[in-house]
Amino acid sequence: MRAIVFDVFGTVVDWRSSLIEQFHQLALELDIDIPGEAIVDQWRGRYGPSMDRVRKGELPWTGLDDLHRESLVELLGQHGLRFDAATIERINLFWHRLTPWPDAVPGLQRLKQRYIIATLTNGNLSLMVDVARHAELPWDMVFCAELFQHYKPDPEVYLGACRLLRLLPEEVMLCAAHNYDLHAARALGMKTAFIPRPSEYGPHQDKDLQADEDWDMVAEDLVALSGRLVSD
Amino acid sequence: MRAIVFDVFGTVVDWRSSLIEQFHQLALELDIDIPGEAIVDQWRGRYGPSMDRVRKGELPWTGLDDLHRESLVELLGQHGLRFDAATIERINLFWHRLTPWPDAVPGLQRLKQRYIIATLTNGNLSLMVDVARHAELPWDMVFCAELFQHYKPDPEVYLGACRLLRLLPEEVMLCAAHNYDLHAARALGMKTAFIPRPSEYGPHQDKDLQADEDWDMVAEDLVALSGRLVSD
Repeated sequence: MRAIVFDVFGTVVDWRSSLIEQFHQLALELDIDIPGEAIVDQWRGRYGPSMDRVRKGELPWTGLDDLHRESLVELLGQHGLRFDAATIERINLFWHRLTPWPDAVPGLQRLKQRYIIATLTNGNLSLMVDVARHAELPWDMVFCAELFQHYKPDPEVYLGACRLLRLLPEEVMLCAAHNYDLHAARALGMKTAFIPRPSEYGPHQDKDLQADEDWDMVAEDLVALSGRLVSD
Repeated sequence: MRAIVFDVFGTVVDWRSSLIEQFHQLALELDIDIPGEAIVDQWRGRYGPSMDRVRKGELPWTGLDDLHRESLVELLGQHGLRFDAATIERINLFWHRLTPWPDAVPGLQRLKQRYIIATLTNGNLSLMVDVARHAELPWDMVFCAELFQHYKPDPEVYLGACRLLRLLPEEVMLCAAHNYDLHAARALGMKTAFIPRPSEYGPHQDKDLQADEDWDMVAEDLVALSGRLVSD
């Protein structure tokens, strides 16, 4: 094994708390009520379906920032919230400023000592570069769906990263908090590591609470994973 | 201006001294004579022409590691050096372990405080990831010709990086030690910064000793550039 690629939303960064907090700050600043938690959950609820429209060919290639914006405009309308274009853009960029889980940076730093570490994310490139800068994630490379014009779990994304790294799939491990992502990677011959993030979707999370297959590694978090993969 | 993209070979890393030193170590280890300096200069001499074969359509897309290997095999034959395949591959990977100029890491670290910093290189992705890890270059992103299936100075490389960053060309600066690269960037509307590297090609260098146009910035090295762009 030579490289580890990481899902980012949920696996490395706590998108839900970060977005809710930014809605809270915006509401204070504008002195209005914004049901941030409801909007965030509905917004994320549209994530998979919006990418599926691209995956099924209903939409031409569209980056995640643009899918997010389309969903956001609809949701704000449903909540009776009227913002100008600049504020809508500002809210859309909340996704560019996400906080890492506490174990993410120290875990990645240790894993980087021995392995190439990279993202393998559905976020568009500029989004992921901003997230990495904001969260100080020490990636060797930012691989994203946009480079391959396919969204995970399409095989082009996983195989494209392996090809660019000039590694065989079995030399690359996908680390993710989502079983669907690991199923796709394993089907292509990649190694797999599951990290549970039981509060990613908030207090009522009912999926991905545990590994649903015998992944190559299952670890409590990224520090635990790094301790097992980078032992002295 | 939001981002600075960098040529790497020559601008950020001292490829010539690094390669000569690795040939020297190999000669000691194998206890044979290897004319490292001559081979390195001839190897680099084939760099532009080999990429031009791809740019002109004489070859299908071929990564730099593969162009390097083809040139290397020919050169070794001309010098009467016979190595097994593993040693040839090891020599080809000398390009993956290049030393940064002394100002590169501190300059990049300071520039990163204010700007997105990324490579914009003809090296293939795995080569550049290895160079960055070896030299501890703190890139936010590794853009390379391979992502766009075009070599610099084809416009697709420069415009592809701007597009993925979701920035206009005038929001992105190219920093390079080579005037030809800056000409291509300026023609597309990008900002330009020239850093002279008067010993890049060794003691007899006769090109790129100075700026041949009024580039937006000309600085002695990357620390000097960072001091002018990231003032307090």
